[in-house]
Amino acid sequence: MNEKRLEEWFSSRKKMRENRTAGKLFDAIRLGDPIALSGAITLLESTREEDQETARDLIRLCLPFSGNSLRIGITGVPGVGKSSFIEKFGQTILANRRKVAVLAIDPSSERTGGSILGDKTRMETLSQNKNVFIRPSAAGNTLGGVARKTRETIILCEAAGFDVLLIETVGVGQSEIMVHSMVDFFLLLLLAGAGDELQGIKRGIMEMADGLAVTKSDGDNVNKAKLAARELKNAIHLFPPTSNGWIPEVKTCSSLENRDIDTVWEMIERFERHTKLNGSFGSKRKHQDLNWMHETLKDLLIRGLWIEEKTRAFIEAKELEVENGVISAFEAAEEIYRLYRKT
Amino acid sequence: MNEKRLEEWFSSRKKMRENRTAGKLFDAIRLGDPIALSGAITLLESTREEDQETARDLIRLCLPFSGNSLRIGITGVPGVGKSSFIEKFGQTILANRRKVAVLAIDPSSERTGGSILGDKTRMETLSQNKNVFIRPSAAGNTLGGVARKTRETIILCEAAGFDVLLIETVGVGQSEIMVHSMVDFFLLLLLAGAGDELQGIKRGIMEMADGLAVTKSDGDNVNKAKLAARELKNAIHLFPPTSNGWIPEVKTCSSLENRDIDTVWEMIERFERHTKLNGSFGSKRKHQDLNWMHETLKDLLIRGLWIEEKTRAFIEAKELEVENGVISAFEAAEEIYRLYRKT
Repeated sequence: MNEKRLEEWFSSRKKMRENRTAGKLFDAIRLGDPIALSGAITLLESTREEDQETARDLIRLCLPFSGNSLRIGITGVPGVGKSSFIEKFGQTILANRRKVAVLAIDPSSERTGGSILGDKTRMETLSQNKNVFIRPSAAGNTLGGVARKTRETIILCEAAGFDVLLIETVGVGQSEIMVHSMVDFFLLLLLAGAGDELQGIKRGIMEMADGLAVTKSDGDNVNKAKLAARELKNAIHLFPPTSNGWIPEVKTCSSLENRDIDTVWEMIERFERHTKLNGSFGSKRKHQDLNWMHETLKDLLIRGLWIEEKTRAFIEAKELEVENGVISAFEAAEEIYRLYRKT
Repeated sequence: MNEKRLEEWFSSRKKMRENRTAGKLFDAIRLGDPIALSGAITLLESTREEDQETARDLIRLCLPFSGNSLRIGITGVPGVGKSSFIEKFGQTILANRRKVAVLAIDPSSERTGGSILGDKTRMETLSQNKNVFIRPSAAGNTLGGVARKTRETIILCEAAGFDVLLIETVGVGQSEIMVHSMVDFFLLLLLAGAGDELQGIKRGIMEMADGLAVTKSDGDNVNKAKLAARELKNAIHLFPPTSNGWIPEVKTCSSLENRDIDTVWEMIERFERHTKLNGSFGSKRKHQDLNWMHETLKDLLIRGLWIEEKTRAFIEAKELEVENGVISAFEAAEEIYRLYRKT
């Protein structure tokens, strides 16, 4: 690189960085610029201290303009047809609301990237709509990191005027509990035939759902889907009621034939009216926020423990002692805590 | 009090304290002395620094002799007939095993004492058996405190030779999750008629159960109970399988007519054989222990935060800011953490 080229390069880098100041990004996001939104989310993911500071400023600016969307979590095992469902579901929503953002969560780093590229291809029509924003999952490999990025992305998308957020996750791990803790409505997609097909779903997920939809109710499969829905309805009837007084509903639908997708949306709108009327919509949000504060605080405290080489080795030694029944779990915890307070 | 009386009193106090050394208590517990066991549990509950140290020593002595019991959690809403069930169930167990301990957990301090006195009266026959130990719930008013005391009581009871532990809790709060995390088998008692009667059970509890029993299957209620069991079986069939390969079973029984209580016990023995054969029994225990270590560590770290007057006021201020959407949950957590690290 000669001197002139080098100078140009520095100047363009500087310009780029200037355009990424919190204030400028905020203005562009509020105007609905998708490239600014995309850039801002990338900023959230950056590990540079400088970028993180800009991201924090940006979040602070966006916060007063957030909270005005309907946040919907969607989960289901691979093969249930999540992408095809969202492709059609997004269009149903756009007939009723202004803008839809689709965020995908997949904390298993091996799948990151690949699956969402597939998603974008499968959501062909939806991804070309100018009122739709589709964002792949965070590149973090810890659940806490992914959760943080997703929470902050929600704030950015809401400031950008998206009034419906779909947060998609694979129904096989801890990520459902995380998504459940950040959405207003939690939708579980299921395959007809029950039994074996449910293998991948983690226990406890079914009771977390505000609504269930049996997918692929088309062709020869219609009767099987209806039977599955009836069985699920009976099962749900036995579940204890939710504290907000909402009784989870079970629907069948077909993405292939684009049938009954609207009944799923109507169910969610009914839920929204119901919970906004009785105040549980707002109180759930506040509860989620406070929970997140305390969870983050715990994470920070724990992370503080693991940073110190000495403490880390000590924890690992104590884990071994607990496993072998040499000391009790409580004693081990107390010993680690004492060491931590001393250092 | 004259001088002589005073001297006598001091000497008896001293004697009592001497007999409460860890070593002496340990010897008496190992010999199966119920009064020593009872005294040791009281020691665990004491807030005196001196007593706590003795308790820690005692736990350390007992630890190598613990772990040899079958730990069964029993839950169900008030009215399901837990005490009557345990009265009969305990006797069924005694026909197969040597010694049964019943521990009750009820973290709501208002109920503490009252309910267990009621229990002892209702478990009349059982409480008079010399191979049975019944202990009321801990007097702590935090869930963490109750959990700790219960975990340590388990260790003491096992060292005292109890080979079956029944840990009873009311099915209405967080305490089920706690009990679930410390037992081998989790039994949920339900009333026939479903629907309204399930109101009190928290969502998610049903999927945590390894076995369900519909109680009060007697008189006019038999058919209703059988129908409820059938419905529950269908519902459970839709649940995802557990990782240990065990399929939860549903039984009906009557404490009044002392009928089919043995089928509940047989189910639990089947579970024990199944999980010991495939190794999940032991791996679950290890997993529980390590979990408890990390949970306790988190609790200690969090408690450390709240002890400082300054930090506490700061946390409360930040909670308010999060509730009002002034700052994000993450920012609040980070600010609290920074303050904590400085002080």
